[in-house]
This record gives sequence, C-alpha cells and structure tokens, in this order.
Amino acid sequence: MPAIERWFRLEWQEHTPPFYCSVDLRNAGFKLAPVDTNLFPGGFNNLPQEVLPLAVQAAMASIEKICPDAKNLLVIPERHTRNAFYLENVARLALIMRQAGLNIRFGTLDENIHGPVTIALADGQKIVLEPLERTPRRLGLKNFDPCSILLNNDLSAGIPHVLENLHEQYLLPPLHAGWAVRRKSTHFSCYDDVAKKFSKLVEIDPWMVNPYFAHVKGVDYEARTGEEALAEAIDGVLKKIAKKYREYGISERPYVVIKADAGTYGKGVMTVHDASEVAALTKRERTKMNDAKEGLQVHDVIVQEGVHTFERVENAVAEPVVYMIDRYVVGGFYRVHDSRERDQNLNAPGMHFVPLGFEHSALPDTHAKPGAAPPNRFYMYGVVARLGLLAASLELEKTDPEAIQV
Amino acid sequence: MPAIERWFRLEWQEHTPPFYCSVDLRNAGFKLAPVDTNLFPGGFNNLPQEVLPLAVQAAMASIEKICPDAKNLLVIPERHTRNAFYLENVARLALIMRQAGLNIRFGTLDENIHGPVTIALADGQKIVLEPLERTPRRLGLKNFDPCSILLNNDLSAGIPHVLENLHEQYLLPPLHAGWAVRRKSTHFSCYDDVAKKFSKLVEIDPWMVNPYFAHVKGVDYEARTGEEALAEAIDGVLKKIAKKYREYGISERPYVVIKADAGTYGKGVMTVHDASEVAALTKRERTKMNDAKEGLQVHDVIVQEGVHTFERVENAVAEPVVYMIDRYVVGGFYRVHDSRERDQNLNAPGMHFVPLGFEHSALPDTHAKPGAAPPNRFYMYGVVARLGLLAASLELEKTDPEAIQV
Repeated sequence: MPAIERWFRLEWQEHTPPFYCSVDLRNAGFKLAPVDTNLFPGGFNNLPQEVLPLAVQAAMASIEKICPDAKNLLVIPERHTRNAFYLENVARLALIMRQAGLNIRFGTLDENIHGPVTIALADGQKIVLEPLERTPRRLGLKNFDPCSILLNNDLSAGIPHVLENLHEQYLLPPLHAGWAVRRKSTHFSCYDDVAKKFSKLVEIDPWMVNPYFAHVKGVDYEARTGEEALAEAIDGVLKKIAKKYREYGISERPYVVIKADAGTYGKGVMTVHDASEVAALTKRERTKMNDAKEGLQVHDVIVQEGVHTFERVENAVAEPVVYMIDRYVVGGFYRVHDSRERDQNLNAPGMHFVPLGFEHSALPDTHAKPGAAPPNRFYMYGVVARLGLLAASLELEKTDPEAIQV
Repeated sequence: MPAIERWFRLEWQEHTPPFYCSVDLRNAGFKLAPVDTNLFPGGFNNLPQEVLPLAVQAAMASIEKICPDAKNLLVIPERHTRNAFYLENVARLALIMRQAGLNIRFGTLDENIHGPVTIALADGQKIVLEPLERTPRRLGLKNFDPCSILLNNDLSAGIPHVLENLHEQYLLPPLHAGWAVRRKSTHFSCYDDVAKKFSKLVEIDPWMVNPYFAHVKGVDYEARTGEEALAEAIDGVLKKIAKKYREYGISERPYVVIKADAGTYGKGVMTVHDASEVAALTKRERTKMNDAKEGLQVHDVIVQEGVHTFERVENAVAEPVVYMIDRYVVGGFYRVHDSRERDQNLNAPGMHFVPLGFEHSALPDTHAKPGAAPPNRFYMYGVVARLGLLAASLELEKTDPEAIQV
C-alpha cells in the first residue's frame, strides 16, 4: 500500500486533478474496474453524513492551491430546477464549500429566470437561484462578484455563451470537461495508459482493473448507419473478453455495454451479449438509443466490456460509486437496483443508494495481525476510483483548447 | 464562518504549521482558550477510530508539500518504551503515516538498545524498536535510509547529538520545537499576536480566547529565589482577571496556574488563588515543583490566567484536547478527571479520555434553518485550537536558529 500511495503522490506532481469527480465501479470479484467517470458529480447528498469533514478538508486543500484568497464562489447547477434529489445534492455541495471557507450563491443558466427564485427543500433548507450577470470579462450575480465558479452542470446542451471567454475567474472544472467536448473514448484511452502503468507497479494483468472498449464513429440507430462497424466492434470486444475468461477459467457469459460517446445519466446505454442484437432493435428502442440528455445527438458510441457486479446489498445488485474532491477520496455509496440483473446498467429509474462505509474500513492496516484488519475491498475501491480520476486528469490535459493551440 | 476559514487560509500562505500538534483547551463558557500546545502529541490512540481517514488525508497533504517522493519515514518515539498507552499512540501514528503512503520503522534514542527489540501491544500489534545508525550527514536504521524523520520525542532531556547536523533529511518537527529550546512564554507571546488579529476579525475582546500570562525568570522553589517576583506576577495577573470579571459580571473567583516555562506532562504545575500560597509551600511541594520531566531543571515559570472548565462529561470535569496534522483539525477528545475540580489541572494521574465527536458536529451549517443545526461548540474548539497552532508556527519561525543567524 505505501507503494501505491507514493505512486499517486508522484502522479499528482505531474498532473492536476479536476476539482471533483465521481467514478462508477463494477466489482466482478475477479476484476474491479471503473465504467464511468463523472466530472460534474451529482449525489453528494447520498454520501454518509460522517464523511462531510473529509470532503471539507479536501475542498480546503484544493481551494488553497487554486486561489488562496478565494472569498466568493458562484455555483452553477443543472437546469432542471425542480428535481428535489438533485437540489439536495446542490445544497450539500454548497455546505461543503461554505465550510471550506467560501461564500456561496447559485446562478442559473435558465434564461426564463429573471429574478431570485427561492426553492424549498424537503429538510426545510432553501436554495435561491439567481440570474447570471455577465460583463465582458467576468461572470457574477447582482452584488456578487465571485473569484471562482463551480460548474455542476455537465454542459450536455452545449457550452453557453455566458460561460465563454472568462479571463479573470477560475472555472471549476474547465469548459472542456463538459459533454459538449468530452468523449468517453478519449477518457478510456487515457485510462488504458493509467491502468497499464499502475498494473506494472502492482504486477497484475492490466485487464484486472480495465474493461476493454472499442470506439465506433457515425452510428445512427434510427437511420441505421454505422450498424456494420458497430456489430464488428461488438464482436471484437466479445472475443477479447472470451479469451480472457478462458485464460482465467471464468465461466461467466461475456457481454458488452454500448454507450453514447458523449453523454451521461445512463441514457443511450444498452447491454448486448451478441452482435446480432443491434440489428434486431425495434423502432422504439432505436429512438431511445439515439436520445441522449437534453437532446444532444449521439453519433459516436463506445462498446465497453461488460463487468458483472458480484456485489449485493439488501439482496439487490449493487455497484460502488466513489466520490473525490481534488485528489482525495471523500466517500461513496452503493447504487442499488432491486429489479436489475448483475450484468445490467443500474443507473436507471428505480435505483437507490446505500452509503459506503469508507470512514471505517477504507484503510487496511497492512501491519495488523492477520485477520484483525477489515477486508481491504473498500481501499481498493478508492484506489481504482483514483485511477479513473487520474485518467480524467490526463484527458483534460489532452483536450485543453489552450494547450492544443500552443 | 467563511471569513474565519479564509483568514486561516491566508495565514497559512505566510506561515508553515509544524507537522502535527495538539492543543489543550479550557472552555469556561464565557471564554474559550488554549492553555497548552504540544508539538509532539501523544494520545493519537485516544482519537475516535472514525477520524482516521481525516488524519491520513491531512498527512498526505503535508507529505506532498514537504517531500513528494518520500518513501521511508523513521519515527523516533519517547524513551519510556514500556508505557503501553504511549506505545499505542506510536502504533496509531505509524498506521496513519503508513496509510498516507510511507514505509515506517522505529528508531530509539535509548542507548541501551543495541539490536531490534520487539514490543507486543495489548491488541496483538507489535512494535519493533531499532538502534539508530548515524553517518556524517544522515540518520537511519540498519538497511533503512529514511528521507524524513518524525520526532515523537519532546527532547525534554536536551538535544541528542545523534539528531544534530542532519542536512539531507527532513526532521519533523525541527529540533527547536523540542523543550530543550521551547519556552511557554515565547509561545503565549506569539499567541497574544494571533489572538489580537483574530479578535479584530470576529470583533470580540481578545481576552475571550486568550488567557493572561506573565513570565517570571529565575524561580527556584527549593532555593527560594525569585519568590518575590513570582508573587508580584501572580498578584498582577489575578488583578487583571478580576478587572475583566467585573467588566463582564462574572462571579467566579480568579485563579492562576503556575507552570514551568519549559516542560510538559502536567508536571511542575500549580493552581493558585492568592500570591501568598507560594510562600506557604511545604518542602515536599517545592521539590515537586522544581522537578520537570526527565530532570530538566526549571528556573523560569509562567503565571497563566486560570480558565475554569464548565464542561462535564459523565459528571466529571472535562477539557477538550484537539489534534491537528498540518493545518487540519483531525480529531480530539475530552480529558476527563473524576476527582479534580473545574479550576484544577486535569493532566494528572487518574485522567481518562472520551472521544470528541468532531466528525459529526464540528461543522455548523450557518445556512440551515435556525434550530436545525447542531450547536457549534465543536467548531469553535477547532478554531481556537488552530489559533494555538498558528501561534506555534510563529513561535518556530521566531526561534529558528537558521533564521536567527541570517
């Protein structure tokens, strides 16, 4: 373990993590891998209350590096202002940032909001959304000039003009972290490099922490273009998985998950055990697969190795989701779905959340008497999630428009 | 609260906190003040298990700044190797540092130890103490070359030659943090400045967070020298307290605590309500007051305003002790004593420890509905403890032998 921690320490000398991040993991027992990395995490309200100080401490460390004299922070949430769960996330996020020493106000990208709108949350808290005020170089609210802006809006709808060309303020994370620019294929290609390097360190087969994937361009399910290339990619990934399963004597049936290359929220996702399943899609299924969040048209997809989850919580299939602020793991929860199977996407209506006890058992004591220390599953979740975070850091370096111009 | 956190953030831009620190607080209700600041904290084992990740995260942040490629850490504990409680502290400390990514071994200053000595702890853990190996420029153990050395020995016995003139390794904290150099009067004089600055920020009377003190030189209780100056100082501090009590309508009886200017462990400490009590000391009491830890002869004392503790835990008087790593509060506990009164020193045989629930209630939500947030007493403990930490940082700058030479 010291070697792993030191490795991360040295990586963070070279690379800057995005301000925050959540990573969806799948634990098949024989492999543990990230399947999605979210740079605008929602669900902070699902973290156990006990880990709040950990989040605050991490936020403090992060702010100190970005802007030590930071005072005001503008938070820009998603547009869907009436989703109570989402607003609880925003309230929790604001609490963390406030406790880290910042004055927080909320600005909305909703152009129908022309004055402060107060929204009451279930627990009696209130959130006030205010219209943004833009000057040529700065963004703020009425009587509120922030030095930093925290985006909790993944920009699936594209980059709003109001956020462009801000030269005097820190945008966390940067615009190119949004889905207008982000591509899963870029992320997982960066993850390949990270997984390879890490696997060399701990002397394991990189496949143990890395799902295979293929990138397919120009797929339109309704127009039925790109179907052949997609079928070929599915076939290729399934064959690679089957080979690994034979190598390790795993008797599971290989499957892949097809995902929109740009987009989130579990939409445009399909589990496939055979390439022929794509050709057999109904009209209704095709429309659904073409639709990503906020109507962003998806023409590229990734075909990702499906990782069974062997975790069960309350007798339902579960996958761990790990939250990080700066380079620090600050908590997590299980995403649990009662009516889904272990090879299905759990990020779907009907899911619920069970806190992950990082605060008690995340840290194995490698020097404790054998048997005395808790199992180190939770620690490994934190490690693999941080590999995802590191991949996101490389991805943002690679796609930074300013760096590209140079 | 954001203003307080920002204030600290800016102070830490100017000043470097010692690696770790614990601060003894007294909460009189009408005032909350640090009465002792320990730069070689013991008692990490008394922190609740739940705050371990907080300590690890803070240690990670600290190491990253000091030496990002740190690999091996040598821990030098106190000499009294047979104290089980103390060794549990050392084991806990090692666990924190190991989880922060370092290989840990223990070196002893005990010159009677010539080979590895294994000590079994109550919980089945083992600690191996090894003799130090010194080269002209470096300190280590057999087959162990550390890049940093963590002192958990307060050097009351003086600075051992083996620790001097290390030029290539980081000594945490530096040698002048030990009691061979440290003086409480210097610390509390730095604390005066910190308290003044902080009080201006939050617009309170600095006395609310600061005990009066006077520094008296050349006191020898047995030789009965310096007694007159001491009586005068006691009288002066008592009068200043009485004036404040009148100003705020406090009906308590003022008292002072006399402490050795150099030294720790609650020895050489006496509670006094009247200057005449010093002249009336018995021979036995005089011998006791002259004795500090490891026989360091004390000739300077401080006369510190006594702060009643209004806290009671399990119906016994209690005082909060707050632990920090780097600039972060990582936990705390109540020092509880069943047979002592609220104006007495609780750091005495018979004390026990009750974890402080920082992880749940340290952080007030200033935006929560009134009544919905827990009382912010714990948060204030963290704030005042950090004022003590900041004073320690100033103190170490002031007493740095290298800085003084320049």
